[in-house]
Amino acid sequence: MTTTTQIRLAAYPVGMPQDSDFETVTAELPALADGQVLLRTIYLSLDPYMRGRMSTAKSYAASLQLGDVIVGGTVCEVLDSRADEFATGDIVLAYTGWQTHAVAAAMQLRRLDPEQAPISTALGVLGMPGFTAYAGLLELGKPKPGETVVVAAAAGPVGSAVGQIARVKGARAVGIAGGPEKCRILLETYGFDAAVDHWSPTFAEDLAAATPDGIDVYFENVGGPVTEAVVKRLNLYARIPVCGLVAGYNATEKPTGPDQLPGFMQRILTLSLTVRGFIQSEFVPTHYESFQRDMSAWVRDGQVNYVEDVVDGLDQATEAFRGLLTGRNVGKLLVRVGDDPTPEARGQ
Amino acid sequence: MTTTTQIRLAAYPVGMPQDSDFETVTAELPALADGQVLLRTIYLSLDPYMRGRMSTAKSYAASLQLGDVIVGGTVCEVLDSRADEFATGDIVLAYTGWQTHAVAAAMQLRRLDPEQAPISTALGVLGMPGFTAYAGLLELGKPKPGETVVVAAAAGPVGSAVGQIARVKGARAVGIAGGPEKCRILLETYGFDAAVDHWSPTFAEDLAAATPDGIDVYFENVGGPVTEAVVKRLNLYARIPVCGLVAGYNATEKPTGPDQLPGFMQRILTLSLTVRGFIQSEFVPTHYESFQRDMSAWVRDGQVNYVEDVVDGLDQATEAFRGLLTGRNVGKLLVRVGDDPTPEARGQ
Repeated sequence: MTTTTQIRLAAYPVGMPQDSDFETVTAELPALADGQVLLRTIYLSLDPYMRGRMSTAKSYAASLQLGDVIVGGTVCEVLDSRADEFATGDIVLAYTGWQTHAVAAAMQLRRLDPEQAPISTALGVLGMPGFTAYAGLLELGKPKPGETVVVAAAAGPVGSAVGQIARVKGARAVGIAGGPEKCRILLETYGFDAAVDHWSPTFAEDLAAATPDGIDVYFENVGGPVTEAVVKRLNLYARIPVCGLVAGYNATEKPTGPDQLPGFMQRILTLSLTVRGFIQSEFVPTHYESFQRDMSAWVRDGQVNYVEDVVDGLDQATEAFRGLLTGRNVGKLLVRVGDDPTPEARGQ
Repeated sequence: MTTTTQIRLAAYPVGMPQDSDFETVTAELPALADGQVLLRTIYLSLDPYMRGRMSTAKSYAASLQLGDVIVGGTVCEVLDSRADEFATGDIVLAYTGWQTHAVAAAMQLRRLDPEQAPISTALGVLGMPGFTAYAGLLELGKPKPGETVVVAAAAGPVGSAVGQIARVKGARAVGIAGGPEKCRILLETYGFDAAVDHWSPTFAEDLAAATPDGIDVYFENVGGPVTEAVVKRLNLYARIPVCGLVAGYNATEKPTGPDQLPGFMQRILTLSLTVRGFIQSEFVPTHYESFQRDMSAWVRDGQVNYVEDVVDGLDQATEAFRGLLTGRNVGKLLVRVGDDPTPEARGQ
């Protein structure tokens, strides 16, 4: 009998999630049925969308029920298998959430090859965040050479990939991030053409200076005041893929006036803008294969870099998650729930 | 020497245009140069976009300067020609604005064939409003058979064409208009599947009842409270072509709160909506030919009907224009500036 330590939703958070919104529970896992495997979590991915699941508001994905294990992508080691596809010791991409062990159906897993790339990248640059950037930017943003692409939360795993893919495609990449340290990373690690600090009192002027030819693509993952400033710089026929609005995820009351919707609609009309919401799963059937091929190549040849921010221990997940919502981390945020057994990790 | 009576912009209107914002002037037209024709205005088209030109706000088209003749599409008779392409007596589509006579370059004109269709339709169902509906609905709205298409100002020349084209394509057409008389016209003249009166105190409930399967395409030409109600009914992957926002055209101050922009962006994200502003000219190169062919056929075989609201005399233009902005007219609003010499008109 294997036990698992789980973090479950104890209450729907109001505003920023509190410790009391979560409960840590130890549970016994059932015996394996045919087609199932027993998993040990190595890495748990923390992502902004999780805040949306901790809510009863209508969304593209079902809300968590109270008592549910918090969802999340994981990289796991197979401890035992009653499925032909997997053997003990295999490393797999799973979606088993905030827990140390789990039983999963083989069909929900994808085997990872530790020789090809560090296994943690399956949760970041070669996983959902990288794919969100790839599909949203290329299919909806459609940057042309010489155009200006702007992305906020640019030091995060999605934003940093957006900027780097934009540059691969010959566009000018301008990143927005909070604070000089993140802005430095944008320029030095990710090769953005310009970085703008949204905490600066001169943010709007700085953004204007960084986008002398206006903005052709705004990859929206933040919302709020950053978006307001960007919208004023948009060019005719600009495209706005919307993949997240993290600035409002903890909002507890209706924003006060003035109502900015009429002005936004007016700009959509007069500039012939395209605003398109999406989640990455829409594009899996059409773009996932080319993503795996392109992005792996770009990472290998150094056109796309990534940074990981790894915290140790499942008991650190809630605090790390709060940090994610306030922009405290730099790079892809992961919780190392258990030892990484791959040679590359041991070599670090 | 030919004189023309012109209505010029005397002041930028604040809110609803007043008589004092216009001045009527008699001017002498210059002698014809090579390649020019002398025109007598028969019909002047009045359209909501003109309000935008009477403003210094940034828009897709240049503002009128004070003293300019108000712009507008016209159907004219050629009185004299120094251009090989046109002869005296020809009927042409022009853009000579609010005046009785004008000199125009031949290359800016298109000859109309009075045998093919009443010449006034070149300003309505077979002209810019019809084309706006056609291109916006088919290229951006992309209605599929069985989907629900909603359009506001549905008794107007754009809205009525949107609903009828939607039905040609096998979609369910729901029209929104102000008052029971217009709603009756939607059902009886234009064949909408349902009509909803936005003046009714039960508007939101009525809209819900008329769209039991939600809304897949919202052709936006109004804005304001109508849009708010529609947005609540949108389906996953709904498309919103935005071709006008007449509800706000006379707004003089910033709308008060609450700020509805964050909620709208949230819906764009969670429903994977596409919101796309446009003006019809973008699609002329790609869609104008098919429009002329399709729409003429649909008008001939009765799949697309149209209604004209003709006021007599250029001196009625300003009052008629105010009526347009408040929804007083029914059908395509035209000013008959001078006699229609075609046999069909004489036979009426």
